[in-house]
Amino acid sequence: MFKGIYTPIVTPFDADEQINYDYLKHNLDSWGKTDLDGIVVLGSNGEFVYLNKEEKMQLVKFVKENFNPNKKILVGTACESTKETVEFSKEIAALGVDAVLLLPPHYYKGGMTEEVLYKYFMDVADAVPIPVMLYNMPGNTGINLSSGLVAKLAKHPNIVGVKDTSGNIVQISEIVRDTDEDFAVFAGNTGYLLPSLAVGARGATLALANIIPEECCKLVSLFNEGKLAEAKELQLRMLEINFAVTGRFGISALKYALDLLGYKGGESRRPLVPILEENKKIIRELLIKYGALS
Amino acid sequence: MFKGIYTPIVTPFDADEQINYDYLKHNLDSWGKTDLDGIVVLGSNGEFVYLNKEEKMQLVKFVKENFNPNKKILVGTACESTKETVEFSKEIAALGVDAVLLLPPHYYKGGMTEEVLYKYFMDVADAVPIPVMLYNMPGNTGINLSSGLVAKLAKHPNIVGVKDTSGNIVQISEIVRDTDEDFAVFAGNTGYLLPSLAVGARGATLALANIIPEECCKLVSLFNEGKLAEAKELQLRMLEINFAVTGRFGISALKYALDLLGYKGGESRRPLVPILEENKKIIRELLIKYGALS
Amino acid sequence: MFKGIYTPIVTPFDADEQINYDYLKHNLDSWGKTDLDGIVVLGSNGEFVYLNKEEKMQLVKFVKENFNPNKKILVGTACESTKETVEFSKEIAALGVDAVLLLPPHYYKGGMTEEVLYKYFMDVADAVPIPVMLYNMPGNTGINLSSGLVAKLAKHPNIVGVKDTSGNIVQISEIVRDTDEDFAVFAGNTGYLLPSLAVGARGATLALANIIPEECCKLVSLFNEGKLAEAKELQLRMLEINFAVTGRFGISALKYALDLLGYKGGESRRPLVPILEENKKIIRELLIKYGALS
Amino acid sequence: MFKGIYTPIVTPFDADEQINYDYLKHNLDSWGKTDLDGIVVLGSNGEFVYLNKEEKMQLVKFVKENFNPNKKILVGTACESTKETVEFSKEIAALGVDAVLLLPPHYYKGGMTEEVLYKYFMDVADAVPIPVMLYNMPGNTGINLSSGLVAKLAKHPNIVGVKDTSGNIVQISEIVRDTDEDFAVFAGNTGYLLPSLAVGARGATLALANIIPEECCKLVSLFNEGKLAEAKELQLRMLEINFAVTGRFGISALKYALDLLGYKGGESRRPLVPILEENKKIIRELLIKYGALS
Repeated sequence: MFKGIYTPIVTPFDADEQINYDYLKHNLDSWGKTDLDGIVVLGSNGEFVYLNKEEKMQLVKFVKENFNPNKKILVGTACESTKETVEFSKEIAALGVDAVLLLPPHYYKGGMTEEVLYKYFMDVADAVPIPVMLYNMPGNTGINLSSGLVAKLAKHPNIVGVKDTSGNIVQISEIVRDTDEDFAVFAGNTGYLLPSLAVGARGATLALANIIPEECCKLVSLFNEGKLAEAKELQLRMLEINFAVTGRFGISALKYALDLLGYKGGESRRPLVPILEENKKIIRELLIKYGALS
Repeated sequence: MFKGIYTPIVTPFDADEQINYDYLKHNLDSWGKTDLDGIVVLGSNGEFVYLNKEEKMQLVKFVKENFNPNKKILVGTACESTKETVEFSKEIAALGVDAVLLLPPHYYKGGMTEEVLYKYFMDVADAVPIPVMLYNMPGNTGINLSSGLVAKLAKHPNIVGVKDTSGNIVQISEIVRDTDEDFAVFAGNTGYLLPSLAVGARGATLALANIIPEECCKLVSLFNEGKLAEAKELQLRMLEINFAVTGRFGISALKYALDLLGYKGGESRRPLVPILEENKKIIRELLIKYGALS
Repeated sequence: MFKGIYTPIVTPFDADEQINYDYLKHNLDSWGKTDLDGIVVLGSNGEFVYLNKEEKMQLVKFVKENFNPNKKILVGTACESTKETVEFSKEIAALGVDAVLLLPPHYYKGGMTEEVLYKYFMDVADAVPIPVMLYNMPGNTGINLSSGLVAKLAKHPNIVGVKDTSGNIVQISEIVRDTDEDFAVFAGNTGYLLPSLAVGARGATLALANIIPEECCKLVSLFNEGKLAEAKELQLRMLEINFAVTGRFGISALKYALDLLGYKGGESRRPLVPILEENKKIIRELLIKYGALS
Repeated sequence: MFKGIYTPIVTPFDADEQINYDYLKHNLDSWGKTDLDGIVVLGSNGEFVYLNKEEKMQLVKFVKENFNPNKKILVGTACESTKETVEFSKEIAALGVDAVLLLPPHYYKGGMTEEVLYKYFMDVADAVPIPVMLYNMPGNTGINLSSGLVAKLAKHPNIVGVKDTSGNIVQISEIVRDTDEDFAVFAGNTGYLLPSLAVGARGATLALANIIPEECCKLVSLFNEGKLAEAKELQLRMLEINFAVTGRFGISALKYALDLLGYKGGESRRPLVPILEENKKIIRELLIKYGALS
């Protein structure tokens, strides 16, 4: 059911830190015309931690009403408590989106044993009326969802996949090995897109696809057509710009790249800071080097 | 201004995960009669991440109305965004509490450089009308507030102290060295209370003081009276029960210990799990061994 | 020049902790008849840290005299000091082996900056008369050789490749991207063999190839023939036994698996401990499940 | 038996990387006239990993013959294998030194479970005819000796103490709590000297005592005399220069400080690099600021 390339969309803000819905509409129109299979709203790149509940509801409603209805919408709904996650996920589900994407609770790192995490995800999957995709993001949460835990959770009929942003290709391989073919194992970053496809991943959720969605989709096509050498060449070529907008400079750089490429990135919310002028220059040069900009 | 022993109070829940205000009132009455200098509401041991905004406001209001007015109240108010932290801190300040306790934003770990954190705390300290105490809790946040950063922030007239739960005694020493005498350097865990006092800490915020507040206060007295040998003996004696209720078994164990000692711990919210029967036995035995229970 | 599958051979010991050369001869004869491109002597799986210099010299001499002369021999020669590494590498080179494999010095972790490591490897590569392959093994050394550092070192005419055991597939991809085509990028563990080939690695040094060398070589063939689905199936199938003999149970388990498969594993040196009886059972079952044993 | 302040002496090298015994003699004479209780030879600050076995034997022999016979000599003798550690420790013991200081084996980090480490230390302590002091140095080894492990080992009659350089003051406290009074718990760095004394440590092994031995001894005296305020003042004052010569700039800076203070630091062995000119300036200024230099 879930496969191909998704992008976790950015949330464009005005200079006064309010969501700019005109910008968002512009971007949704553009992404809707690409080969993307869908988008993720309220993901890490969407600054979900900086939005309050009302803003989140309004945002998802707007996306649902304004995005290409032939593509899928996933929504990040994890809260720290089971109770709040269930309640919020249900409200989001009622808006007609396709699935929720669930980070593990992570504040009490010492208490989040595999048993506790298992119960959390099972409780939520039992209660939420739409499919659940697990979201493993140890870089931000400090918690890893092991392949053993994911495989156990994958037996729940309502848990349909995992976005793994650990960068651990062995773990991704083990999840593919230990789950059914219809369980959607998604790479969480372009840095290991081809390696993940090579071991059986069915798709990916890529911040880079905010700015060059067609290139990300093309890598999947090349792989599916058995054009390994071309796929490798593209994979290696995407690494540098990918690292710049996801690792080295962060969300503000991703938004600046959107601006350069005809999208509307807008500002970020504090404490995130605007991209420095010297880093703008680097982003521009990397996009030119890549061939996305002339 | 801030010194001595504070305890980050637990939030007692019913079996249906609602806050039990009767239990809370009972505990506030008890703590109010001890030598504690104050309490922290909405701290890590208060399960603040499991409470929504309405619950937080109501809880703080209740504490303010029901706690010994001669003792201080600190409130944890950190949110991920600067905007929301400022707004929430102002609302809490309006309830008449003594200071806010501020964790750093920590979801985007890669983006939380010292510069970004500096600006965050300065922005909040500028905007909030009551004193700000920094809260360093790398075990839960994955972010450390270095001694250099704390010393820079300590120059802001509205930043009055730091609760350091890093366990890094060199860092605590450096903060004492690099700040004025009226800057409140607080140890964040009983495990290093005496060592912190020895290098000049002015107080501590101790989960253990939920259950044995007088013993924690006594260690400070012994130290102040120069009774080093007795202080050392008490420090070593407190380590085991402290580790059990803060590190080994977590908040549910702390709540169970409260139950045993005449307080009302109540339940925790999911995903936290109730304490196992075999661990209850251990807690009981440790309290007996310590001498708090017979 | 260097490509394909190498195995870091184990060093079989007697019950009294002496090297058993009969066992070694038996194994060398067996490995020599396989499709392996070569072997590594004095690698991590060879317990090189438990051998003194005399033993190391004698061992390498024996291997050189007794191994199939049509296959290559790499030798681990890193010592902590530049001086001792150069001297020992020269002595080893004089025995007629094909290259040395160099771990970074790693005791003074804080002092091993990229500049210091760069100088170390350049100094050694300048002085040693045979090719140098870098060996990145952060799990044991606590030091990572970044893709940037490796790319810089790759410009030295005598530094011909890297064995990367970081498990970081992005790093391996970057090294491929940033080095010439004749620079031998080798995966350091079977866990990411296919992903590494997919991004352009030219070979691998695999502990697993001690016990099932032909299977490891077959994966390379399948990949080279474009049989991606079969390669993926084999990659996933090898994960479990690979983890058992390299991660979960260690060198003693690898030696026990050798015993089961007609090789002679022998004992390990203390502090390494013999494999437990219950773990022997697991190894046997995994080999049967894999199909290497009936 | 072991108490007070020891210093892990540096090994002075010539420009051609040979040990300079004249320099060493000069230093031994100077340290021998201080209040130091003893010295450690072949410790981390002595660059033991850069010396071969012959050099180590000769060095220890020289120290034994040239150091004040009223002070104690500890020697670092750990090798990776049990066998080599035992053999080398016996040879060192035969030179008439007072104890050996034993790091855990640490190359195979995954295999060094508490059980394996326990057996290693017990095997060595059984075989070596002089007392054994454990040496916990996780920053360099990547392995921590837990308080539980140390307490178990402390029951061996020949294991007489531990130098703990973890910086974990809770762990140090637990070791004091769980061992007999004659077990020598030593702080491993000046950064936490006073905190360690406060919880019952009996001494310390301090790199800083290479350059300002009397000041380190004075802190112990102040503490023993109950002059807590003065002890605290001294502790805080030593932090900056201590960090400079142990953490920030490393062994070359420590040697440069020795040069400035009338000792003979000499050069380091590669890959360690000489101290930069700009860092020399910083060391000089810190020594002046401290009052050790005018």
